[in-house]
Amino acid sequence: MCPDLLPAPGGEELTRGFLQEVVDILLGYISKSSQRSSKVLDFHHPHQLKEGLECFSLDLPDQPETLEQILVDCRDTLKYGVRTGHPRFLNQLSSGLDVVGVAGEWLTSTANTNMFTYEVSPVFVLMEECLLKKMQSILGWSDDVGDGIFCPGGTISNLYSILVARYHFYPEVKTRGMGVLPQLALFTSEQSHYSVKKSAAVLGMGSENVFMVKCDERWVSSKYTKGFLVINGMHNNGNVCSPVASLYVSVFASLGVELFNFKYLFSRACSVTWNPHKMMGVPLQCSAILVKKRGLLQECNDFGAEYLFQTDKNYDVSYDTGDKSIQCGRHVDVFKLWLMWKAKGSEGFGSQVNKCLENAEYLYDQLQRRTDFELVLKNKPEHSNVCFWYIPPSLRGQPPGPDRDARLHQVAPRIKGRMMEKGSVMIGYQPLGDKVNFFRCVFSNPATQQEDIDFLLDEITRLGDI
Amino acid sequence: MCPDLLPAPGGEELTRGFLQEVVDILLGYISKSSQRSSKVLDFHHPHQLKEGLECFSLDLPDQPETLEQILVDCRDTLKYGVRTGHPRFLNQLSSGLDVVGVAGEWLTSTANTNMFTYEVSPVFVLMEECLLKKMQSILGWSDDVGDGIFCPGGTISNLYSILVARYHFYPEVKTRGMGVLPQLALFTSEQSHYSVKKSAAVLGMGSENVFMVKCDERWVSSKYTKGFLVINGMHNNGNVCSPVASLYVSVFASLGVELFNFKYLFSRACSVTWNPHKMMGVPLQCSAILVKKRGLLQECNDFGAEYLFQTDKNYDVSYDTGDKSIQCGRHVDVFKLWLMWKAKGSEGFGSQVNKCLENAEYLYDQLQRRTDFELVLKNKPEHSNVCFWYIPPSLRGQPPGPDRDARLHQVAPRIKGRMMEKGSVMIGYQPLGDKVNFFRCVFSNPATQQEDIDFLLDEITRLGDI
Ligand SMILES: Cc1ncc(COP(=O)(O)O)c(C=O)c1O
Ligand SMILES: Cc1ncc(COP(=O)(O)O)c(C=O)c1O
Repeated sequence: MCPDLLPAPGGEELTRGFLQEVVDILLGYISKSSQRSSKVLDFHHPHQLKEGLECFSLDLPDQPETLEQILVDCRDTLKYGVRTGHPRFLNQLSSGLDVVGVAGEWLTSTANTNMFTYEVSPVFVLMEECLLKKMQSILGWSDDVGDGIFCPGGTISNLYSILVARYHFYPEVKTRGMGVLPQLALFTSEQSHYSVKKSAAVLGMGSENVFMVKCDERWVSSKYTKGFLVINGMHNNGNVCSPVASLYVSVFASLGVELFNFKYLFSRACSVTWNPHKMMGVPLQCSAILVKKRGLLQECNDFGAEYLFQTDKNYDVSYDTGDKSIQCGRHVDVFKLWLMWKAKGSEGFGSQVNKCLENAEYLYDQLQRRTDFELVLKNKPEHSNVCFWYIPPSLRGQPPGPDRDARLHQVAPRIKGRMMEKGSVMIGYQPLGDKVNFFRCVFSNPATQQEDIDFLLDEITRLGDI
Repeated sequence: MCPDLLPAPGGEELTRGFLQEVVDILLGYISKSSQRSSKVLDFHHPHQLKEGLECFSLDLPDQPETLEQILVDCRDTLKYGVRTGHPRFLNQLSSGLDVVGVAGEWLTSTANTNMFTYEVSPVFVLMEECLLKKMQSILGWSDDVGDGIFCPGGTISNLYSILVARYHFYPEVKTRGMGVLPQLALFTSEQSHYSVKKSAAVLGMGSENVFMVKCDERWVSSKYTKGFLVINGMHNNGNVCSPVASLYVSVFASLGVELFNFKYLFSRACSVTWNPHKMMGVPLQCSAILVKKRGLLQECNDFGAEYLFQTDKNYDVSYDTGDKSIQCGRHVDVFKLWLMWKAKGSEGFGSQVNKCLENAEYLYDQLQRRTDFELVLKNKPEHSNVCFWYIPPSLRGQPPGPDRDARLHQVAPRIKGRMMEKGSVMIGYQPLGDKVNFFRCVFSNPATQQEDIDFLLDEITRLGDI
């Protein structure tokens, strides 16, 4: 134990000194992460890290370490980690290092409270209400119909949407289970995120009862390849040709940018997943499920625990929103988003997202210009993802076919491996259907500039030609 | 936007200055929270806070605020919040303000990464493995059998345990759903936490199929009243008298202290919920589900998203543990626990928990001594919860019966309301079965000393006698 830190009597000075040293480490990390001369990561294989590098050991002791050692542990943890805020971290969404967002999260963890009741989170509960209303108004929903809740990630948001849809059609499922229901089917795009199937499995609906609907080339190109936009029809008799009246439309627009481009979808939707920890650059975790029918979340999930949701409190208990949740304790995910919204305004978020779209266009243009790259989809990107192959010299001019495919399939993983070992840049890759491994560049990091995109392509070329 | 903070070029100085000011606010908050002369909270009704107090407005602007205003917002958020680390915050578990835990969470939010792959969280993924192993060894499980994952709270942990139990007996449920299964039943203690029913509803099993098993007075008194210890039998044919062989025993020992007292349960358990954000004082959220059968979590939940879990990576991909999860993105909840373990050692956690048990005993002794209080259960507490009534002068000597009950029922809420308005101390209350509202004191806050317990009882007397 560190018996001299607060709450120990007289522990104030030591506490301040210790936390200030931690903050100095963090401030150093933040400024270094913004420098292009820093590595994105200092790669080690699992067995290397586990063997313990220098003074860094993962083992959990019986006896306390000194505070000096705790500071060393903090430094080493950052040293061997990945700088997701580095301008050349393009590996996935939920990247970036938003300074105000980080400040918000520092405050949240210092306040260390729980969203389940107004009693212990008066300010945060009201911020959640305020954010949900704002988000609904952006979707074009009228002020008094909508509802929602923040939850731990887009996948759980998607799970909620299926959960409330099921309850909407079959409220008896809550008490009686799936056993008394007819066979249900779920429709989603063939390019939808795997969270739809995962949630269907958790909810007891079964992944086989998720029907993947074909989508046209334009949608494949722009939205579905990135697996972000799903229209999920919930259906009451397992018959694919069911009347539209029994469709429950959920839009899983996890990225945030869809809000600007696909508004027409949202007005029709019964629920929407909105994931500020993606394109909006809010530190992970921050995700909301918005439900158009007020009251549905509460009815679907409440079990009225008497030790939390007493009805004879001294305040308006309609602010105890915890029983809308499938959780009990719930982390405060709203404050960082609220604070960022204050600091940027809606317009600031808008231009941040536009910047990412511009980066995607710039990459698209560069790829067209360079002969050693090939676009997976020829269309101009409608979103912030761009997918492409690098064609190494040995494959250039080789005719298409299984032979070339087999070799091309190995190119991206090999280059990615070299990138990681060098620590110069990070980008993802994947195969998709009959398409062999390609690079998948996702722009959501506000630190990324055109020079980083140039660097990315140059670096791929350098590493690919070895 | 704050266009001059990082990642803006040259934004380093402003960033440092801004974050340092935030930290100064947080350090001030931390030291004030440890002072008994501070209020636990500065209570306002929802409508008062919403109308905006002084310069504090919840509204989300289109245009950015200044950084000065952001600092004001931070200060006000803390001012109108609840000091869960205050020595007199006894309202619920997940309290306290562990300095090393807070430091850990500050670092986590600065690193802003995602647990789903080793690639982006090498250090944190290994810390999770290390923690899970340690926890399993404390449960007495042998090194090579167990598995587990950290997830957002005890309720989700409990949901996992039911989910894997169902999969264990009926693996076809994952793809085919509940429709092809016989009727399932779930057994739990009549005093179990409401998360069992909630999870049964989510999973499509139905809350009516949860059977509440009576427990003896001793268990009611010590464990079940606090709703923390549940043995959840999963059953394969809906017949209550099923053979033990088809029982899947889950122990929901969310508090952490059970580890010391009820070890015999854990060796038998197929899964265990362990919730470090409760008695161990780790900042919310931090919870693990431990599963004895290695591989079960992965089989139950994997859908192998190709954009994340490529098998042709340059490192040992068995460290990409993300597909064990029902989430996709997953917050790093392990670092603060790992760091606290380093700082306290297992022994430090042990003595912290013992301190809470001592506090419970002290309260119990005081309650027996004072004539204006009545214990809900006469036994010495076996845990850190103590439940009691305050009997105001007007009720003393009144014979038991519905009349007295009706009046006693109103006492705790009234006193609690006055407490909150005064901001002097916070404690929960609840009814239970035929027992009218009683106070429920939960010790998990390491800041609480005997003088705070004396204060609590004196304050209840003062406020109750008005
Ligand atoms: C047995 C049990 N399960 C679950 C929970 C809920 O945990 P959480 O609030 O982390 O979801 C509790 C809370 O006290 C509990 O005692
Ligand atoms: C449509 C959709 N749903 C869910 C997710 C997963 O979100 P999370 O990682 O927050 O669970 C994604 C991730 O990209 C997504 O695109």
